[in-house]
Amino acid sequence: MKCVIIGTGTWATALGQVLCDNGHQVILFGRDIEQVRQINEEHQNRRYFGDIVFLPLSLLATTNLSSAMKEAQYVILAVPTSALREVLLQIEPHIQQPVTLINTAKGFDSITNERLSSLIRRSVAPSKRTEIVSLIGPSHAEEVIMRNLTLLTSTSVDLTLANEVARVFSNDYFRVYAQSDEIGAEIGVAMKNVIAIASGIIFGLGYGDNARAALITRGLAEIIHFGKHFGGHAKTFQGLTGLGDLTVTCNSFHSRNFMAGVQIGKNDSSEEFFRTNINTVEGIGAAKAIHQLAKKHHIEIPIVDAVYEVLYHGAKPSEMVRALMTRPLKEE
Amino acid sequence: MKCVIIGTGTWATALGQVLCDNGHQVILFGRDIEQVRQINEEHQNRRYFGDIVFLPLSLLATTNLSSAMKEAQYVILAVPTSALREVLLQIEPHIQQPVTLINTAKGFDSITNERLSSLIRRSVAPSKRTEIVSLIGPSHAEEVIMRNLTLLTSTSVDLTLANEVARVFSNDYFRVYAQSDEIGAEIGVAMKNVIAIASGIIFGLGYGDNARAALITRGLAEIIHFGKHFGGHAKTFQGLTGLGDLTVTCNSFHSRNFMAGVQIGKNDSSEEFFRTNINTVEGIGAAKAIHQLAKKHHIEIPIVDAVYEVLYHGAKPSEMVRALMTRPLKEE
Repeated sequence: MKCVIIGTGTWATALGQVLCDNGHQVILFGRDIEQVRQINEEHQNRRYFGDIVFLPLSLLATTNLSSAMKEAQYVILAVPTSALREVLLQIEPHIQQPVTLINTAKGFDSITNERLSSLIRRSVAPSKRTEIVSLIGPSHAEEVIMRNLTLLTSTSVDLTLANEVARVFSNDYFRVYAQSDEIGAEIGVAMKNVIAIASGIIFGLGYGDNARAALITRGLAEIIHFGKHFGGHAKTFQGLTGLGDLTVTCNSFHSRNFMAGVQIGKNDSSEEFFRTNINTVEGIGAAKAIHQLAKKHHIEIPIVDAVYEVLYHGAKPSEMVRALMTRPLKEE
Repeated sequence: MKCVIIGTGTWATALGQVLCDNGHQVILFGRDIEQVRQINEEHQNRRYFGDIVFLPLSLLATTNLSSAMKEAQYVILAVPTSALREVLLQIEPHIQQPVTLINTAKGFDSITNERLSSLIRRSVAPSKRTEIVSLIGPSHAEEVIMRNLTLLTSTSVDLTLANEVARVFSNDYFRVYAQSDEIGAEIGVAMKNVIAIASGIIFGLGYGDNARAALITRGLAEIIHFGKHFGGHAKTFQGLTGLGDLTVTCNSFHSRNFMAGVQIGKNDSSEEFFRTNINTVEGIGAAKAIHQLAKKHHIEIPIVDAVYEVLYHGAKPSEMVRALMTRPLKEE
């Protein structure tokens, strides 16, 4: 199986290693000449994994998109949400025979607010592709690269294809489970990044585990409420792409979304965060998209709205949290 | 409102402080003369909270059960599950007028495997009490004593009473929400202690956040599967007494259940843990009760069964985890 991975970031590299471990032919496409050379010649990706991680010798990288795409069967899109739209435009002309496009980003398109599978579906002609697959779930790349046990999902409306992709990626430490609820899964993994920012804010403000547990509980309820409106299935939100991804992101210092929240909470303001941050924090874009979608569809999502106000309108985190967590007593 | 709290442990003391903060008359009943003296004269409970926590001057304690119970309106049972049966026998003769019994333990009776509300209901004559209330949710006493924001539930089949109790306990930092699904709530809070032991084992064995997230996800599914069989409502398991209590216990170093699992995982055996442990670890009894109930009712609960085998039959944690987490690939 020839697999092309678009991107040379943490997740692209970790997935490349998984596929090499499984005996597939893998090539990463990236733009940074030095990084590509490092992967090919030194078998390292030091920008992301320092000098302690040595990559499989069979993991190759290139800056030449056209040669990378030649005879590709799987094209894995391992780029941030904000880059996906442009990447699709870029790769589409290079697709010669029908490929399986596998998305790994978690968010909504920033222009149309549509789910990423919809964006991909619309951007690549049906004759050039199978159904869309998303490889998503609770999975920090930093742990996958260490071959630490990880369970995630292969999600596609075409369940046979989802199962095929699950088999290609699965091994002893990387367990992929097929599921077909594209809507529920994509909304779950995108929205939990916003809840994780809120969770980090709570932590940064000095609240304890009890308060964070309450926030996560309310957060899942909010994800279910929002997601069901668009047709997601209740069961999906309790699974790896719902609760699973939520709990790992809301409690982990590996998570950029949680850590963004921690900084914002500590300063009781998002100002310094925006002045100094250089990382991709997917929850920032997602907060805006979800806020706009909820407004349009009249869905009540108080946590996401609070995060949106903190991020986009300079609201004070401590005041937003107090208002959120001390709403009038009513039944659970 | 005169409130008697049976017990002088962490949770008894923390709840006593909450009720004093709310202006109620509170007396703790305990057996340890020195501890009772310390609370009354030095306003400390050093065994549990060291010498940094000073308790409200109005918080009193006694070793005299009969005087404590006199004119009590609320009797809060803040003792471990294993002591509840005996405590009920002890207090029953001292109840002069109908009281509201509020349970705070999380588990199953070790002899009959019944839920604690059922045990209380059966042990105290209806003429001596209102309906049973449980005050349960994600709430480490160590945080409540610091007046850190905590949200939990007042659960009773009598929703009016649940709301009354919620109002008595609620204040700025202690938010209590009424709910009426006694079965779902009690099963959720008892069973999550077993999942937390499993979560600790995973951590102790060296697995990362990804694996723990998957375990928690599978754990909630198992709680729902088991709890629904006995009539618990799906929604309850997503709330504070389900997901909320699960996430705080499975991720927190405050949790005795999680920490028991960590030690068992590090040694890849439960032997040393049982030789050295002096704490109440509620998940140990719960694992046995749930295992037996599931067997009787033919319910599949692979995580609880694995914990049971590790705790009661010397099974090797690493082998149990591997078997659990690498079950054949199937749909999520």
